[in-house]
Amino acid sequence: MSQPKLQRQSDRRDEILEAAERCFVRAGFHQTSMQEICAEAGMSAGNLYRYFPSKEALISGIAERDRAELAQDFARADLSHGLFAVIEGMMRHHFSVRPADEVLLCTEVMSEARRNPEIARISRAFDTDVRKWLLDMFRAAAEQGDIAKDADFESAVDMLMLIADGMWWRRALDPNFKADAMIPVFLDVARHLLRSRAQDERAEEGKSK
Amino acid sequence: MSQPKLQRQSDRRDEILEAAERCFVRAGFHQTSMQEICAEAGMSAGNLYRYFPSKEALISGIAERDRAELAQDFARADLSHGLFAVIEGMMRHHFSVRPADEVLLCTEVMSEARRNPEIARISRAFDTDVRKWLLDMFRAAAEQGDIAKDADFESAVDMLMLIADGMWWRRALDPNFKADAMIPVFLDVARHLLRSRAQDERAEEGKSK
Repeated sequence: MSQPKLQRQSDRRDEILEAAERCFVRAGFHQTSMQEICAEAGMSAGNLYRYFPSKEALISGIAERDRAELAQDFARADLSHGLFAVIEGMMRHHFSVRPADEVLLCTEVMSEARRNPEIARISRAFDTDVRKWLLDMFRAAAEQGDIAKDADFESAVDMLMLIADGMWWRRALDPNFKADAMIPVFLDVARHLLRSRAQDERAEEGKSK
Repeated sequence: MSQPKLQRQSDRRDEILEAAERCFVRAGFHQTSMQEICAEAGMSAGNLYRYFPSKEALISGIAERDRAELAQDFARADLSHGLFAVIEGMMRHHFSVRPADEVLLCTEVMSEARRNPEIARISRAFDTDVRKWLLDMFRAAAEQGDIAKDADFESAVDMLMLIADGMWWRRALDPNFKADAMIPVFLDVARHLLRSRAQDERAEEGKSK
């Protein structure tokens, strides 16, 4: 296939995914029909089905696109200003700057994942990747001395990802929620979770003396 | 009205709420009809509507019942073994012992709250109460010397509630999630968040010397 044709197909895919995203956010995954997505994308059903044969395929396409973007964010993360500057930047981007629509789509996927095994699979694969990228980033930061090498990386990642899920939901449900105000608290918790365990033990010994 | 009659009505209400809960968990709030709830409760529509005129009224009834239970849990909380023993007990009860169905109902309410203003109102009122009960408990614990009086109670409550929401969702979405394994991490974060701020400042001064 020629390059311009491949590019046109890729652009068309992106347009369809954006149309689907708008529909899912507006009415919910469950209540949106493929016909509505065709209308939003301004194309025939026959044409749209050639790109995406089902709503699950559309969610999978959106997740794939977002995962590629996030993979790039992690690959580009510049640790030269320290790990916590990177975490703060990511927090600001994902929890404060990102438009409300994208937040709502995340909660839509989580809601749907409870009853749709295919969506659950996509959602878990996404989480598995994010977990791995965070662990790799923590290990790189430990190598350069930002955090202790003996920190409990696994527990820290698990907890920070729980907080992130909680923040998506709070943002989606509470119009008064100030994500910005929570970022310093999040960073404080991240620093605490990524502390040296040996230091903990020394503090414990100090206390018992 | 006679006492036995009042009791019968109250029992009937409870039965209907349990039937509605089973339907919502099985099929989702949106996909459940009042007819299905009547069938599950084994009563006529006319009769059920006298108790609850809408699905929103049913969710409101379930929330009211759960709120009353939780209010009792907080009222009965025995701080004599220390604040963190109480928090640990509550965590075990709500995040590990409570059946999966109740977890799914929580996520169902959160999902529905995104598009249904009445459910959003009920959900926010519930959160407001839990927030207040937690703050009161922290203040009582500070009075008896379990935690520092100058701890940042507000930030701690906000963060712990975000984590709790994240835990509901992880439990609902990931069959391999071990809530029990996260409880020590949760307690560690709670202790950290409820630390003395003056101590922090002294540590900072120590570092800069």
